[in-house]
Amino acid sequence: MAYDRGKRKKYLKKVVSPVRIKPSASISELLSGMGETAFQGKNLSRAVDVWEEMLKGRTTVFFGLAGALVPAGMRELVVYLIKNRYIDCLVSTGANLFHDIHETLGRYHYQGHPHVDDRILRDAGIDRIYDVFALEGEFNAVDRYLYDFSFVLEKRPYTTREFLYLLGKDLAKRGEAEGIVLAAYRNGVPVYCPAVGDSSIGIALALRDGETNFLFDTIGDVKETAHLASNAKASGVIFAGGGTPKNFIQQTEVTACLMGKRAPGHRYAIQITADAPHWGGLSGCTFEEAQSWGKIAKKSSRVTVNCDSTIALPIIVSALSQRVKGVKRVLPDLSLKNSHRVKKRIWE
Amino acid sequence: MAYDRGKRKKYLKKVVSPVRIKPSASISELLSGMGETAFQGKNLSRAVDVWEEMLKGRTTVFFGLAGALVPAGMRELVVYLIKNRYIDCLVSTGANLFHDIHETLGRYHYQGHPHVDDRILRDAGIDRIYDVFALEGEFNAVDRYLYDFSFVLEKRPYTTREFLYLLGKDLAKRGEAEGIVLAAYRNGVPVYCPAVGDSSIGIALALRDGETNFLFDTIGDVKETAHLASNAKASGVIFAGGGTPKNFIQQTEVTACLMGKRAPGHRYAIQITADAPHWGGLSGCTFEEAQSWGKIAKKSSRVTVNCDSTIALPIIVSALSQRVKGVKRVLPDLSLKNSHRVKKRIWE
Amino acid sequence: MAYDRGKRKKYLKKVVSPVRIKPSASISELLSGMGETAFQGKNLSRAVDVWEEMLKGRTTVFFGLAGALVPAGMRELVVYLIKNRYIDCLVSTGANLFHDIHETLGRYHYQGHPHVDDRILRDAGIDRIYDVFALEGEFNAVDRYLYDFSFVLEKRPYTTREFLYLLGKDLAKRGEAEGIVLAAYRNGVPVYCPAVGDSSIGIALALRDGETNFLFDTIGDVKETAHLASNAKASGVIFAGGGTPKNFIQQTEVTACLMGKRAPGHRYAIQITADAPHWGGLSGCTFEEAQSWGKIAKKSSRVTVNCDSTIALPIIVSALSQRVKGVKRVLPDLSLKNSHRVKKRIWE
Amino acid sequence: MAYDRGKRKKYLKKVVSPVRIKPSASISELLSGMGETAFQGKNLSRAVDVWEEMLKGRTTVFFGLAGALVPAGMRELVVYLIKNRYIDCLVSTGANLFHDIHETLGRYHYQGHPHVDDRILRDAGIDRIYDVFALEGEFNAVDRYLYDFSFVLEKRPYTTREFLYLLGKDLAKRGEAEGIVLAAYRNGVPVYCPAVGDSSIGIALALRDGETNFLFDTIGDVKETAHLASNAKASGVIFAGGGTPKNFIQQTEVTACLMGKRAPGHRYAIQITADAPHWGGLSGCTFEEAQSWGKIAKKSSRVTVNCDSTIALPIIVSALSQRVKGVKRVLPDLSLKNSHRVKKRIWE
Repeated sequence: MAYDRGKRKKYLKKVVSPVRIKPSASISELLSGMGETAFQGKNLSRAVDVWEEMLKGRTTVFFGLAGALVPAGMRELVVYLIKNRYIDCLVSTGANLFHDIHETLGRYHYQGHPHVDDRILRDAGIDRIYDVFALEGEFNAVDRYLYDFSFVLEKRPYTTREFLYLLGKDLAKRGEAEGIVLAAYRNGVPVYCPAVGDSSIGIALALRDGETNFLFDTIGDVKETAHLASNAKASGVIFAGGGTPKNFIQQTEVTACLMGKRAPGHRYAIQITADAPHWGGLSGCTFEEAQSWGKIAKKSSRVTVNCDSTIALPIIVSALSQRVKGVKRVLPDLSLKNSHRVKKRIWE
Repeated sequence: MAYDRGKRKKYLKKVVSPVRIKPSASISELLSGMGETAFQGKNLSRAVDVWEEMLKGRTTVFFGLAGALVPAGMRELVVYLIKNRYIDCLVSTGANLFHDIHETLGRYHYQGHPHVDDRILRDAGIDRIYDVFALEGEFNAVDRYLYDFSFVLEKRPYTTREFLYLLGKDLAKRGEAEGIVLAAYRNGVPVYCPAVGDSSIGIALALRDGETNFLFDTIGDVKETAHLASNAKASGVIFAGGGTPKNFIQQTEVTACLMGKRAPGHRYAIQITADAPHWGGLSGCTFEEAQSWGKIAKKSSRVTVNCDSTIALPIIVSALSQRVKGVKRVLPDLSLKNSHRVKKRIWE
Repeated sequence: MAYDRGKRKKYLKKVVSPVRIKPSASISELLSGMGETAFQGKNLSRAVDVWEEMLKGRTTVFFGLAGALVPAGMRELVVYLIKNRYIDCLVSTGANLFHDIHETLGRYHYQGHPHVDDRILRDAGIDRIYDVFALEGEFNAVDRYLYDFSFVLEKRPYTTREFLYLLGKDLAKRGEAEGIVLAAYRNGVPVYCPAVGDSSIGIALALRDGETNFLFDTIGDVKETAHLASNAKASGVIFAGGGTPKNFIQQTEVTACLMGKRAPGHRYAIQITADAPHWGGLSGCTFEEAQSWGKIAKKSSRVTVNCDSTIALPIIVSALSQRVKGVKRVLPDLSLKNSHRVKKRIWE
Repeated sequence: MAYDRGKRKKYLKKVVSPVRIKPSASISELLSGMGETAFQGKNLSRAVDVWEEMLKGRTTVFFGLAGALVPAGMRELVVYLIKNRYIDCLVSTGANLFHDIHETLGRYHYQGHPHVDDRILRDAGIDRIYDVFALEGEFNAVDRYLYDFSFVLEKRPYTTREFLYLLGKDLAKRGEAEGIVLAAYRNGVPVYCPAVGDSSIGIALALRDGETNFLFDTIGDVKETAHLASNAKASGVIFAGGGTPKNFIQQTEVTACLMGKRAPGHRYAIQITADAPHWGGLSGCTFEEAQSWGKIAKKSSRVTVNCDSTIALPIIVSALSQRVKGVKRVLPDLSLKNSHRVKKRIWE
């Protein structure tokens, strides 16, 4: 069989250079070495590179947090991201925020096992999250805190951002230990929770008698995040897991486009996922698919790391912390002024 | 090695009986045969059995619809479930409802391919959902319909159930073709969308200038579903995929329990999932884990089918349709009277 | 944004037509309906089409059997494939053949549970395969049968095909119940087991004292299968799972090519897999990747169904049995004459 | 609901301690921190602990290498494992060894992309392994080397261990660069390849005209590995991927048991896998399932890490290299004397 040798140059540019084990290597050095390999090890390495790129420009970095990552010990890591402004806007499931407040209020999650008799746990008042255990009674104390907190809210709509900001403020006033909600409040990082009803936060608030007084401004969340993305010099997205945070951050570009605003697509994109594209769901979809929608820019730095976030995040962020030491980040403009204004629509 | 033979009886009760191929077998018969086997084939068969059990008692059947199942051709199947009252309450992602309305309004999804150059699709105005294509311009027409519709809403909070009911009514009034939202309206099946902002429905509504007039009563959704579950003689859950629908349905028992209401745990449970428990997320978690939380009853009929819903649903529902022919279902009470009342809380 | 409408025609050819539930539908009809949808449901449907195509031409159909499918109740199905000549050559893991003989000799597998205390099973002499149980003592009886059988073999190399043929003959002589090995013997379907040592067959044969008398002609297996593929008018491959059967069947084209023989690539290809391409392994790799190696023809009918084989196989084969009723298959030439001859090599 | 508080102590022993990002942390320190968390991050950490345990005792460490890890840049890492005797016996797929020799002979793998037109690659003579490219012509040169090498073999059976030892010797004699086969030869680490026919090694050997002269002693491999495991003071297993290497190493205990030899089950067990138990295959099965067969000891240190090996291996081995610095390993006895003797069988 005669081969067409002319095309080879295009494809064969860089050899796989086997990773070498050096006991003296730092995390960042190991990751650099893994960047010369293939499969998901290469992708893990590339995630550090893309994140570093984001931080070196004036990028608005959106971070989507899904999966039970706070019970699984990722709370301090997210606090680190916020305090060092590796991220500028957090979109989270309600559960992660609930479990964050749980720890902020001095309660614990416990190391457990996935192979137990859950009926015995039930009898003991222990709730299980894969291999994490927690006391249901302690969760109820958080429910009560949120329930009580809700009475300070006025009879008006609140975006989840404002709600969580006020919650952070309340935790600060009480002198609680720093966690995600609290650090975000202190560091001016907006936090959105698009499915807030679908979590123990929603449950706690549902314990009020009668129709709730205050309301969530669900659509306000959509507008604000589209505004933030549209106003960004450049935007980047990082998804730990999929779920509502991933889609909610992706859709900012679609919303902005329909509003006739600037919507170039996110320029940087990292996702850490244990899902796969072939099931057709949004959680597992590729960034290429997102390009067809204009969510991700046609020219973009992007990488998918197929890995559990509890492995990938600590390693990526540790390597990043070693790389960007001393880099002074130029923070993006997160002003929400006029975020509710929509002057025209795509059909106008 | 000497074995303890006494324990064998407990474990060795039923032999695996290899499935036999008979060209004359109906879908139901084939599924029955698969019930004598193992792995996911057995689980698929068992799903039909558990669903049949639900329909024979006075069970309130909650159905969670996640993943892009409507674009993938599952719309008529869900309509069938609603019209034949195989389900009593639907909890869906916003996307599935948006795509349902898209088809109701006479638009199409197209059979495509996952391996295409998405930048070319972008230029052509084609949005991709794995191997499904659709015209962005046609989506915009749906956006516009929803945008226009929203102006009839009053300045007050609406549960997503009420919002979707009114939408169904509007579609009916317009004489549109039957779809999920429309069939649910006609058949008295409540539909909830806990993350409505996180979808093209949310995007369309975000196109209104200024603060939105009407609001979503996010917490009202939580209350109503807890009320429905607590009032059920028995409740059953069926999850196609995970996401917000799964957790939202599961949490009804937790909410009811915190409200001091009846919360025995769901008695029947089926999930069709391509996720796995070992990633720790709620989408992939087992029903056993849910038992530790009291979401699923300690004594319950339950099965997890690890399979793509686009395979499992048509087969399960076809087999079910052959089994329950002629069975007159006793519909559960779905009254929402006083669903907003909470007389006490767990700590009171 | 102005779209390039010219390109749309190429992409938007066929609408997704939602599958309709009809209680009267046959399995084949349901599958046809699913072919109008998307995701894995469409692929399942397409697998029936591609297999049907194979049977209508004079195709040599290779079937790779991996995963513990026989313990899971797929034994009769494989027998059906052999007797109806839906397949012409079987490549299997050793375990599946061992478990087949186990049932042929009148022993059983049992329906069990994945969540048990395996240490208790150990004490009871029960071996577990996910949710299948079996008695270790009964396996030992099969070990003994194979051990005894091996003494009839002469001091010479045997391909696994010949070994398994003789085994089938012995089972026939003993008047045992029909299973895979026996049906293959009777129907002239060659069976290969490329990793025969890696199974209980290998274990049983290792119980002989001293160096084994007879030997496996490992390389003979490679030659023969390359010969079969190269001599085929057209070849098709069907993989239930990955493992050695998948690669072994794929590599026939590479071997033939290196031998300077006809190696056009397999023209039809179906794989049923729960693996994914992004882990980089051969088991999860795409047929497109296989095209780069020349294993699969550039022009080929091919489909990957992401699904457990215990779901997909019974459904696909049932539908197929309804479709091809009455079709008289023209059997391919499976002669192995001169299969050991290699006249030249690619570098000569 | 009244809880049974007595049972809590048993379950709530150790809190999840969120991992903290410290730029100064070494890989080993980060991993220690991850050991205080949950999900797969905890398991990754535990893998280092279990491996360390193995090295501190006189353990025979079996390492199973599956998946295309050598093309993906894991070659030097395996060489490191061999040279530092982190492992004592390697069981590999044929492909990994073939690709190792490819690089030993001075050829390369290239960093590529999974989304390419494979028909173009075909025309260019480029073979793809997910995101790795290689020149088919260069593979042919390895084929030729192996083909030529085979002529030095005598007309007798060779275990794959002996075959690969002689291959290593030949590579050494030629003065080639160190790789897996060569390092194993030099360091006295036996290498087995249970499915050698199912790889390019098998293909190359199949290019000889007529019946092959030399033969593989397939059953000899089974005996030798059972002998090594049975003679070990304690044995440990590490699986990168599943496939034949995993089962082949697991089955050593079953073989030894049937031979009436010492078979306590492997005492240490680590697996890195992207597979899941619920598909029922051996590649994804749990170590608990293996306990029912006696493959893994009832009392054993074991951990499953659900992760791509190209991520997990470099991190685990780097951390291990930092931990065991200065530890002088006591090498196990790997003598194969009388490994072919079987004095009795379980039924005697």
